Parts: sequence; C-alpha cells; structure tokens
Amino acid sequence: MDTLNQSQNTNRQILLASRPSGPPTAENFKLVSSSKPEPAEGEVLLRTVYLSLDPYMRGRMNDAKSYADPVAINEVMVGGSVCRVELSRNANFAVGDWVVAGGGWQDFSVSNGADLVKIDSTLVKPSYGLGVLGMPGLTAYMGLLDIGQPEAGETVVVAAATGAVGSLVGQIAKIKGCKVVGIAGGAEKCDYAVKKLGFDACLDHYSEDLPTQLANACADGIDVYFENVGGRVFDAVMPLLNPSARVPLCGLISQYNATALPEGPDRMSALMGTLLVKRVKMQGFIVFDDYGHRYPEFFTAMQQWLSQGQIHYKEHLVDGLENSVEAFIGLLEGKNFGKLVVRVGPDNLA
Amino acid sequence: MDTLNQSQNTNRQILLASRPSGPPTAENFKLVSSSKPEPAEGEVLLRTVYLSLDPYMRGRMNDAKSYADPVAINEVMVGGSVCRVELSRNANFAVGDWVVAGGGWQDFSVSNGADLVKIDSTLVKPSYGLGVLGMPGLTAYMGLLDIGQPEAGETVVVAAATGAVGSLVGQIAKIKGCKVVGIAGGAEKCDYAVKKLGFDACLDHYSEDLPTQLANACADGIDVYFENVGGRVFDAVMPLLNPSARVPLCGLISQYNATALPEGPDRMSALMGTLLVKRVKMQGFIVFDDYGHRYPEFFTAMQQWLSQGQIHYKEHLVDGLENSVEAFIGLLEGKNFGKLVVRVGPDNLA
Repeated sequence: MDTLNQSQNTNRQILLASRPSGPPTAENFKLVSSSKPEPAEGEVLLRTVYLSLDPYMRGRMNDAKSYADPVAINEVMVGGSVCRVELSRNANFAVGDWVVAGGGWQDFSVSNGADLVKIDSTLVKPSYGLGVLGMPGLTAYMGLLDIGQPEAGETVVVAAATGAVGSLVGQIAKIKGCKVVGIAGGAEKCDYAVKKLGFDACLDHYSEDLPTQLANACADGIDVYFENVGGRVFDAVMPLLNPSARVPLCGLISQYNATALPEGPDRMSALMGTLLVKRVKMQGFIVFDDYGHRYPEFFTAMQQWLSQGQIHYKEHLVDGLENSVEAFIGLLEGKNFGKLVVRVGPDNLA
Repeated sequence: MDTLNQSQNTNRQILLASRPSGPPTAENFKLVSSSKPEPAEGEVLLRTVYLSLDPYMRGRMNDAKSYADPVAINEVMVGGSVCRVELSRNANFAVGDWVVAGGGWQDFSVSNGADLVKIDSTLVKPSYGLGVLGMPGLTAYMGLLDIGQPEAGETVVVAAATGAVGSLVGQIAKIKGCKVVGIAGGAEKCDYAVKKLGFDACLDHYSEDLPTQLANACADGIDVYFENVGGRVFDAVMPLLNPSARVPLCGLISQYNATALPEGPDRMSALMGTLLVKRVKMQGFIVFDDYGHRYPEFFTAMQQWLSQGQIHYKEHLVDGLENSVEAFIGLLEGKNFGKLVVRVGPDNLA
C-alpha cells in the first residue's frame, strides 16, 4: 500500500500563484484540486508517476521572455514527467503504457501523443527517462561532446558535479580519456564525485580559496569548462582557460535568483577580451532545440554505458506532489544530492 | 625620383621606448638609426617597401602576455611588411623578389626565409599582401565563413565597416546573399560602405541613437555579428542577437587603450545569460594560429573575386617610416579610411 496522496478522482495541481523576486518562496505557488481532465478523441489521459524538478523552471517563473514563454499566473507549473496511460482514445497508446511527457506539476494531464516518448519498462527504469536517459542526459552528452569536443588527455572542469547534468558530463569525459575536475557543494558530494563517479578531483565551492585550489587541481589549465552555474565558479575558471578552450554554456544556476546585476566594475569587456586572446569558444545551447534530433544516437550510447557499469546515476527521490515546492526551492540552493525527482503516484511496474 | 627618406646605407628603426598607459603617444616610440644588418649563410637581406599598421599592435605594447609576447622596451616594433630581397644567401630567393615578411617598423631586416611568402607582382599588387590578400583578408574570410557560417537571407552586422577587415567581411557576406549592415565613423565612410561596397545600410557610430538606428536597420534581428570593436557598438548589438546567432570575435579596438574596466554594474553574467537563452556562439580567433593552413583556399577565392570586380579594396597610404607613429595613433582613433599601409621605400616594380 502506497502512502502517496494521489487519488483516482481528483487532480491536484500546483499553480504559479505569483512571480518571485529573488529566491522563490512557498507563497509563489498554490496547490489546488480540480476534477480529472477528460481526453478527447485522439488523446490519452496520463497519470503522473514521476515529476522532474530542474533549475530551468526558475526562469519560467519570471515574466521575461527567455527561450520559452513564461508560465502564466494561475497556470500549472511546467515540467517533464513520467506517466502511465490511464485511458486511451489514441490508437498508438494502450492503457498501462509508460511514457515521458510534459505533464507539469499535477496528478493528471491529457496529450494528443505528439509530445510523448514511450518507455520500455523492461529495459529502462522509468524514472531514468527524466535524467540519465532524458533531458539532463542529452544535455550532458551533446554539450560536452558536440560543443566541448574534448580530446583524451585534456582537462575538463564541471560544476554541480553530482547534479543530474554535471555527474554525467564528468563521467562521459572520463570515458573519453580526459582529466576531470568537479566542483560541488560540500565534502560528501566531493567525496562521491571522486570515489564513486571517478573524477580526478572535486573541490568544494564553499571554500574561500577555490581559485587557488582550482589552479592547483588544473596544473595544465582548463580545456573544456562545462558551464552550468556561473558566478564565482566561473570567476575562478576564467583565468585558467587554455588557448582554444571550449565553454558549452548550459545553465547559470547561481544567477537565477538574482534581482539585479552585481556591482561593478563591468567585466563584460574583460570576458570578451579573454575569449579573444585565448581564442575561446563559448556557446549557449538549449538541448531540445539544438539537439533533439540526435536523441536516438545519445540513447544508444548511454544505454550501453549504463549496462556496462561505466556510468553511475544517482536519484534524489522525494515522495508526494505536495512536497514539490519545498524540493524545488532546495534544488536552487543545492540541497539535492543526485537528480531530483518527485514520486507523485505509485510506481509499481505491474 | 622618390621623396622617401630610405637610404641604402643605414637602417632606420622605430623602437618601443616606453609602455603606454591609455592611448599611445609619440613619446612611447623612438626612431633610431643603425647599420644595415648582414645576412648570414641561408639568410636574405630584406628592404621594407610597405609596412602594415594594424590594431593588434597596440596589444603588443603592453607588458601583459596576450596571444603573443609583448614587444620588449627598446626592441623594434613588430609588424607585417612587404619587402624586396636586396641580397640573398638562400637558394630559394633571388635579388629583387617581392615577399610578405614580418619585417617590423624598420628599413631593413634579415630572414632565413621560413616566414616569407613570395608575391608574384605580375599578378598581385604587392601591397595587397598586407590587406585583401593577406592577414586582414584571411581574418575576414575565415572569421565570417568558418565561425560566422552566414546563410543567404540572414542579417550580418560588422563595425569598422570601411576598415581593412570590416570592408571585406561585409562584401563577402553580400556575395553569400546576406543582408549587411555596417557601422562606421562618420558620413563619408558610411556613404562609401553603401555606395561603393554595396552594404544595405551603414550607421554612424558617433550617433547618439545608434541602438535605435541599429534596431531599425536590423528589423529581423542579427544572425552574425562580426566583432572587431566592442564597447558601445556591442552594447547596441547584444539585445538584437537572434536565437542561434554567431559572434566571431576578431578584435576589440574600442578597448585597446583602456586602462581600467568600465564602471558597474557588472554585466558579465548578463552577457553569459544572453549567450545561454539565445543559444549564441561567441568565438575568439587569432587568424594565423587558427587558419594559417587554409591560406591557399582563401587566396584562390579572394583573387577570383578581386579579378571579377566583386570585391573593392581601398588602401590608405602614408609615405615615410618616420610618419608611422602618427599614422598608428590615428588608426586607433579611426582616422584612417581604408587599410593603413606605410610606404617605407620606393615601390617601383622594375
């Protein structure tokens, strides 16, 4: 008997109640209940089993047009999910099918099937579709390999080293023969990155002397910096970039809660000057826009690495849709350890 | 009879006398005379006919290690040159040969031949080896085509639009079917860019409302921004960059004389945020390091465009080595109109 509060009759939804200024608080969200949606002809009714919580969601809470439209006030928070088909009026899906969907922060949703990817639960742990075999995995794989172009023997640095993306970036770089230096928050995460993930070193970003530690750990400079945090980690990285370094720009989590630009001086020209004299490539990417078409190639490679034990993957599971808000606020503070996933409904495979 | 002060007996040299703080002044340079150097076995004696003056030289005057070592105090200023072989102790070169060399700011130099490229003066105007067929040409060609990857119909923006590099970037972009918007200093240059070079528009960077003018001229946003100036031109460009825009980073002439970073706020994270959400590639390059091996491909294409009248090329000739300092200081202020070349010695082709 499962202790989750998902019911068969009502649809709990977490809405965006107001836009945060700075870090989001519980007041920015609202839990409401409504009736289950009804699928039209050609649609399926989906029950959310797992909800993915990811840093990009903070950007959707702002009113500014980013790479995607903001969530409207009183609209359901967006999010990737792993769902089961409860009712099907679409010939391509049967009741019980596991799918990766964009169901959002709620118990039930409907889809016409166009955005769904079926999961073979005999091959793949369904929740992995939100992480190592889903968006974060594709992000790590494409950002590192297509933009970062690491060569064996080069030094790769990645922050949020035990997070959903960073842990995979570092492990793929190790598979490619690179030296990998991670940066993470606290001794436990750093220990895990070295002992379990096989990084060559992992530094605590809370250390006062991070710049010195990083310079020591990267004695030959930095060839690829996979950027997912920004802020003082990037400040420490910038002077160590080697000629022809590559900086795939995947996220800037340290900046997401900022309400104003930092005080001066204005280092924008200094960054551009560094890119110029060191011939650095810095390239932003949005994984499904840029690399969605290469998902099959990624899936094949990652499946194989997983099955051979070359990739370790850690999930941080939180039970209950009602706990999503607290978990998400913690994610932005680095409180999770591994890919953050909310178990919304019973996940028995039968 | 030529009025240049080049003699057959002495070697005038312009040395770096002191390092500038801010814009260079005449006092940072020193004109000295010494005896002509003597080529050893395997070497040639070169007489400088043309000296190239280029913005990158400002960087070499600083003590900071940039992409190349700084010029030492009391050392001859570095620079590309077109020379004639005066005396040869190298079987590969004959007296009278025209070559592109790195002769520096002086009348005579010696070389073992390894850094020399012969010019067929029956095909090519020798001074073009310092511009449209030399380093600036290769810079424009590779930065635009290899990093910028412009597609027909896209909007390309380039500053210093009548300069050695910018004028070629815009014309190559036109050949590739792009819409080209230039930015230049003053009405005369802007007029030239539109009427002679065929740009679709050219804006005066002295205008107060440059951001508005640029937004109007780039109604469909900016797909490629070839960056060679930085500063307030980039400030105007940044908000107009389209998703997946490319920014080849070739120079930052507006910053070269800066002695300190601008006042805040610190926009470094804002630049990275823009690159991220718009999926922009910004990539610095140093042309001979990155693309020297592709010189033949470039030469063939550019030769053909020149011979077909598809590329216009304007030189700004200054007579006399002794006038190099004033000309160089003016270059950093945008006083030249076309590729700045100093005629150091007689250039009769016989």
